[in-house]
Amino acid sequence: MISKGFKWVFRSPPRLLLIGFACIILAGTILLKLPAATAAEETTSWIDALFTATSATCVTGLVTLDTGTHWTTFGQIVILALIQIGGLGFMTMATLFAFFLKRKISLKERLILQEALNQSSMEGIVRLVRRVIVYALSIQLIGALLLSVRFLFDMSPGRAIYFGIFHAISFFNNAGFDIMGHYKSLTDYVGDPLVNIVTMLLIILGGLGFIVLSDLIDWKRTRRLTLHSKVVLSMTGFLIGFGALVILVFEYTNAGTMEPLSFGEKLLSAFLQSVSPRTAGVNSLDLASLRQATQFFLVLLMFIGASPGSTGGGIKTTTFATLIGAVYAMMRGKDDVVMFRYRLAQERVYKALTVTLLSLALVLVATMILSTTEDHHFLEILFEVTSAFSTVGLSMGLTLELTLVGKIIIIVMMFIGRVGPLSMGYAFGPKPGRTLYRYAEGKIIIG
Amino acid sequence: MISKGFKWVFRSPPRLLLIGFACIILAGTILLKLPAATAAEETTSWIDALFTATSATCVTGLVTLDTGTHWTTFGQIVILALIQIGGLGFMTMATLFAFFLKRKISLKERLILQEALNQSSMEGIVRLVRRVIVYALSIQLIGALLLSVRFLFDMSPGRAIYFGIFHAISFFNNAGFDIMGHYKSLTDYVGDPLVNIVTMLLIILGGLGFIVLSDLIDWKRTRRLTLHSKVVLSMTGFLIGFGALVILVFEYTNAGTMEPLSFGEKLLSAFLQSVSPRTAGVNSLDLASLRQATQFFLVLLMFIGASPGSTGGGIKTTTFATLIGAVYAMMRGKDDVVMFRYRLAQERVYKALTVTLLSLALVLVATMILSTTEDHHFLEILFEVTSAFSTVGLSMGLTLELTLVGKIIIIVMMFIGRVGPLSMGYAFGPKPGRTLYRYAEGKIIIG
Ligand SMILES: [K+]
Ligand SMILES: [K+]
Repeated sequence: MISKGFKWVFRSPPRLLLIGFACIILAGTILLKLPAATAAEETTSWIDALFTATSATCVTGLVTLDTGTHWTTFGQIVILALIQIGGLGFMTMATLFAFFLKRKISLKERLILQEALNQSSMEGIVRLVRRVIVYALSIQLIGALLLSVRFLFDMSPGRAIYFGIFHAISFFNNAGFDIMGHYKSLTDYVGDPLVNIVTMLLIILGGLGFIVLSDLIDWKRTRRLTLHSKVVLSMTGFLIGFGALVILVFEYTNAGTMEPLSFGEKLLSAFLQSVSPRTAGVNSLDLASLRQATQFFLVLLMFIGASPGSTGGGIKTTTFATLIGAVYAMMRGKDDVVMFRYRLAQERVYKALTVTLLSLALVLVATMILSTTEDHHFLEILFEVTSAFSTVGLSMGLTLELTLVGKIIIIVMMFIGRVGPLSMGYAFGPKPGRTLYRYAEGKIIIG
Repeated sequence: MISKGFKWVFRSPPRLLLIGFACIILAGTILLKLPAATAAEETTSWIDALFTATSATCVTGLVTLDTGTHWTTFGQIVILALIQIGGLGFMTMATLFAFFLKRKISLKERLILQEALNQSSMEGIVRLVRRVIVYALSIQLIGALLLSVRFLFDMSPGRAIYFGIFHAISFFNNAGFDIMGHYKSLTDYVGDPLVNIVTMLLIILGGLGFIVLSDLIDWKRTRRLTLHSKVVLSMTGFLIGFGALVILVFEYTNAGTMEPLSFGEKLLSAFLQSVSPRTAGVNSLDLASLRQATQFFLVLLMFIGASPGSTGGGIKTTTFATLIGAVYAMMRGKDDVVMFRYRLAQERVYKALTVTLLSLALVLVATMILSTTEDHHFLEILFEVTSAFSTVGLSMGLTLELTLVGKIIIIVMMFIGRVGPLSMGYAFGPKPGRTLYRYAEGKIIIG
């Protein structure tokens, strides 16, 4: 009976991924529920422990309790461990252990890894995983050093180093957790160039995905990028630049956000606010004071999210690029979606369509349900749900006032968002099979 | 110079359609601006005349002035004429004239008609147009008779007949205009079975599209339906039934809408409210009092809209069905989108994707702009913009408080929504051409 269950789990990589994630969240919940995790004079309910563990493991960053003041250092380290495991991917961690134990990696483990990293070709996966760890830890280390130096000006050395490490790990993993206290995030550092630039670089590098990182590091030697990297880099650059411009225009005269800042600070905050929703979840401007148009624009950026195989969520930059490519091709009467002089297979376009529509349906249904359980404005709810689904972690304030049903729905959205709606479908849907016959073509009128 | 301009217009059917629509709207604006159109003690500004003419010609039904009290009978008849011209399609009207004049229809005119009716095969278009007129007028006549009989109980015979004709034409054309006065729409008749059922039938028949109507009328003889009709009818049935269920569940205990009604009246209003957003625009419940979840659900129904070649707007039922089919195929690992044992060409799926994404982008951008110009909640603005784009005509009250910029944007959305975003693209975009070579396949990672 039990062995049958194990077989059922191990036969499907997406299923294994999903159950692995669930186990880590469960373990995290129990650790966070320990009295040692909660600061004196605070109490932690099971639902809040589950919420925090899910948010950390799924690198979302939505919190019902203030990370800086509610938890003890032990509690914060549990959260940090969940972030690192969730962010670098628990499958990558499993390989790491295998690597240290000098065990050979079996074909099955390779296949599972392939799913975890969403890689098309299986070759080089193992080599890649080793590099993932090395690169990730190196980048985090540099980030931690730079942030610690800056924090030395504001706090004791021990605290500065701890803060540097915590935030570097959190930012690189696009986790959005901060221990500044009182839900402040980076609002105290809105005009600080070092903190802002290091934060943005950590977020961007974490959100590019390891394949692109690897490609970039090899560039000195190979002098060429894969199509995937080209699409990711150009789309990321476009979204950051265009996003910052839109935010700057909408908020320039808003007294509640940018108006009091100098031009340099305005620029810095516009860029941070453009980078962060995809999908880091730190903020230097007060989100609730933003104009409605800006808030909705952030919802769109959150929905698009980061790049595949990264620490971020959302439908992904490549999916968005494919959709635009398909619309462009259709408008020009072309049969193929072409990018950088390569055409995409039809199956890729259908996959992009599927990911987008499933994600949209999930976000909209969850928003509709929360609209009946929470007594908040629609846009706040849409913002919260999209933030959870894309594992962003920004909130206009709803998280702190969620009802029990609301918390459960947000937990489910964070989980599905991190695992991916397609993986969820593959994990529980019937085994896909090919058909040996085709039906005759029929005609219907579209649009 | 002028002849060159004419040539430029006539060379492209979508361009001709678009300019034809614009001319009708312009003529309507001038007629509505005449003193004879406005009731004593009222004044009509140019922007409101343009807004009303656009709303009538595009069969939207959003109004900045109360149709029942602001306009004279002459003004109302101008509106009714614009509705009938816009609804049956000005190209169909052109054929009607040609038909009466016994002129032969040229190949170019046929091509333009094909575009207007969005028909794939050109054969039978002319025959179809004749039937369109006969069917539409017959259905409107029966509807007008039934409504007039009911209105006899509440008003003088002459008025009852006028009201019957006006509303039958407005409902069949999915125009959403009413002359009940004081923006009441059908709220006075929330529990009246005859008015509700006749209204729903007129809306549904008008929204099916003439191809399906024609197919249905031939059914007695042929005993078979085309694939297009099957998809339209099953999707329409599903959306109406599912929509009514969701509205009933969300609103059952809402004291501002359904709670005071008897169960029969609850059912009737749920069905009317499910039928109407796709895309008739009459309402028997107070939209502003609906729960947020219901309001957002109506936004989704509005966005989907009616069926192709009908008097309604939206992305269309067949487009929605194709998207669902594509997701289903992808999840099951199939290459083809299959409906009723026919597969759809890849080009159809791309077209569905394009129509949906362009529509979504338009609605979202317009919503974002209105969020900065109008001091209203996001959901009210989203509701208004979707209603305009899908030519529905429902409003939570924003129409009456629109700023000048807001009115202009809503006018543009009504126009693009009626002409169709794809036609807009074809009208002004470069001439589509085939490529003679294909690029090599490249791989990117999706989702
Ligand atoms: K995050
Ligand atoms: K309408």
